[in-house]
Amino acid sequence: MHNDLIVIDGLQYSNWNRAIFQQLKEGGVTMVHVTVVYHEQIRETLLSIAKWNRQFEMHHDLIMPVKSTADIRLAKKLGKVSIMFGAQNCSPIEDDIGMVEIMRELNLMIMQLTYNNQSLLACGCYEAQDSGVTRFGKQVIKEMNRVGMVVDMSHSGERSTLDAIAMSQSPIVISHANPNSFHEAKRNKSDKVLKALGESGGLLGFSLYPFHLKNGPDCSLDDFCDMIANTADLMGIDHIGLGTDLCQEQPLSVLEWMRNGRWSKEMDYGEGSKENSDWPRPLSWFRDSRDFPNITRGLQKRGFNADDIAKVMGLNWLNFLDEGLKPQGLER
Amino acid sequence: MHNDLIVIDGLQYSNWNRAIFQQLKEGGVTMVHVTVVYHEQIRETLLSIAKWNRQFEMHHDLIMPVKSTADIRLAKKLGKVSIMFGAQNCSPIEDDIGMVEIMRELNLMIMQLTYNNQSLLACGCYEAQDSGVTRFGKQVIKEMNRVGMVVDMSHSGERSTLDAIAMSQSPIVISHANPNSFHEAKRNKSDKVLKALGESGGLLGFSLYPFHLKNGPDCSLDDFCDMIANTADLMGIDHIGLGTDLCQEQPLSVLEWMRNGRWSKEMDYGEGSKENSDWPRPLSWFRDSRDFPNITRGLQKRGFNADDIAKVMGLNWLNFLDEGLKPQGLER
Repeated sequence: MHNDLIVIDGLQYSNWNRAIFQQLKEGGVTMVHVTVVYHEQIRETLLSIAKWNRQFEMHHDLIMPVKSTADIRLAKKLGKVSIMFGAQNCSPIEDDIGMVEIMRELNLMIMQLTYNNQSLLACGCYEAQDSGVTRFGKQVIKEMNRVGMVVDMSHSGERSTLDAIAMSQSPIVISHANPNSFHEAKRNKSDKVLKALGESGGLLGFSLYPFHLKNGPDCSLDDFCDMIANTADLMGIDHIGLGTDLCQEQPLSVLEWMRNGRWSKEMDYGEGSKENSDWPRPLSWFRDSRDFPNITRGLQKRGFNADDIAKVMGLNWLNFLDEGLKPQGLER
Repeated sequence: MHNDLIVIDGLQYSNWNRAIFQQLKEGGVTMVHVTVVYHEQIRETLLSIAKWNRQFEMHHDLIMPVKSTADIRLAKKLGKVSIMFGAQNCSPIEDDIGMVEIMRELNLMIMQLTYNNQSLLACGCYEAQDSGVTRFGKQVIKEMNRVGMVVDMSHSGERSTLDAIAMSQSPIVISHANPNSFHEAKRNKSDKVLKALGESGGLLGFSLYPFHLKNGPDCSLDDFCDMIANTADLMGIDHIGLGTDLCQEQPLSVLEWMRNGRWSKEMDYGEGSKENSDWPRPLSWFRDSRDFPNITRGLQKRGFNADDIAKVMGLNWLNFLDEGLKPQGLER
């Protein structure tokens, strides 16, 4: 059944090249949300998008950009992999609310308000104190709603996340994280957050990054599918999807950039440690994008019916984006 | 008949506000090509576009952005003034060919390769020697063709202009200038250039900036319409339009920015002089955008038939843009 599905991966950051695009296609992926920047500011964000434009030009037989959700459906029809841009931090708008619409015009469809640390908008999940969404953050959420850019709180703190859920007129997303009840981690989410997210019409994308999983790289597919079933009970089957956090072929320097940006002279090891500073070992049943059919099979084995599998594998993401990318306040 | 026309002004740079938009509407203008930057680089260009986005938001009952030529026709139907972005220099791409597509995605539809001085792309009309389109310039013209951004050579030198006409796959424009045969000026164009422009399918927009006119601010409407008739004979009636170069309510500092950018510590007076350094006195028959119907009447008096008047007042620009804004090489 996997080939009939619209499969959506709610987050990847790979060292993009044709072989990786080919893997996405082989894995039956219709759309992947790609990180265009972590901590890069405006000028560097334009560079990153320009680099993607070259990819689209060179590999137009294989990939295409998402300028609206119609492009995701078109990609399915054409057998191409569609690419949706997102940012993992709010650095692409610097301190300027006018840049939200500018970035949306460049097809940046989704933006995290924070990445682990305090940002100008909200608080990250690694800070000791979370004072919630800031004054600027409140304005930016309103503006993101207006232009149809999705608020992502994957790396945010608890209070900021609850604030964003309450403040945002459009449902928000946690594109790549897991429940704390499955595996305790700063990056994973409490039942309180997940329940509020589901009730507000939001979506959780389950992460396959070993640091977010029970038993790390040794997490079993059965355990992973159990977690999905339990979260469906908590949030509702319509509010969950995938966000693998897959990072293919990236050197250690990129992991260090994610963790440290330009904010520290001391090395921060994020979810790792000095003794365990490198990329985690991959899961045996999800080595790269070619393994998406394993998840479909895992869900079948766990007793999900075909409709629910279709929802988890991509349909929920598609429905969510149909709503989330709709500008709420552009009258033109 | 003026109200039935699609009136297009091929260049204005005003200190934009609601009153000026209202004047455009009263003058029956369907579309105006506005300068978003003179010498501003990437970050400042984004600021300027963001400022325009606020204008569109605040005055959506009156103005709308041009994202394709369909928007110009829609504006006519809705009775709104449509706004097309352009740059008077190539500073918005800095030294980066990838920024051509980025800027086009932000609806920058037209770009001058030079503004009076030598640029990285070509030579301006004020330099002593014009060595033609540069290596980078050649690549950029190709890229502009590919993404559907119009090449404008209004402020360029003769050789560079002839080069651009020959090199560009899509027809190019001289959006605001007049024939040297009407009034000798560095900014006006030789018959050789104008003939080549017409033969290549390009377009000339007649300027109403007094420095480009016979007798300056005292140029008569009859003389102006004579010039149009003579240029129609030279280039063909399908290759001419308007590009008023109207600058409403701008302080002297803006004129100084146009003339000096950041390139000189000595004051450059451009088309003026130390004794005559300020904005020129406006024409009695074209004080602001409300006076477009005067031009229609002038053309009628000069013996142009209704079809030809429609062409000069806007239809030629529309047809030209239908072609010029079409991406030649985006396969996606």
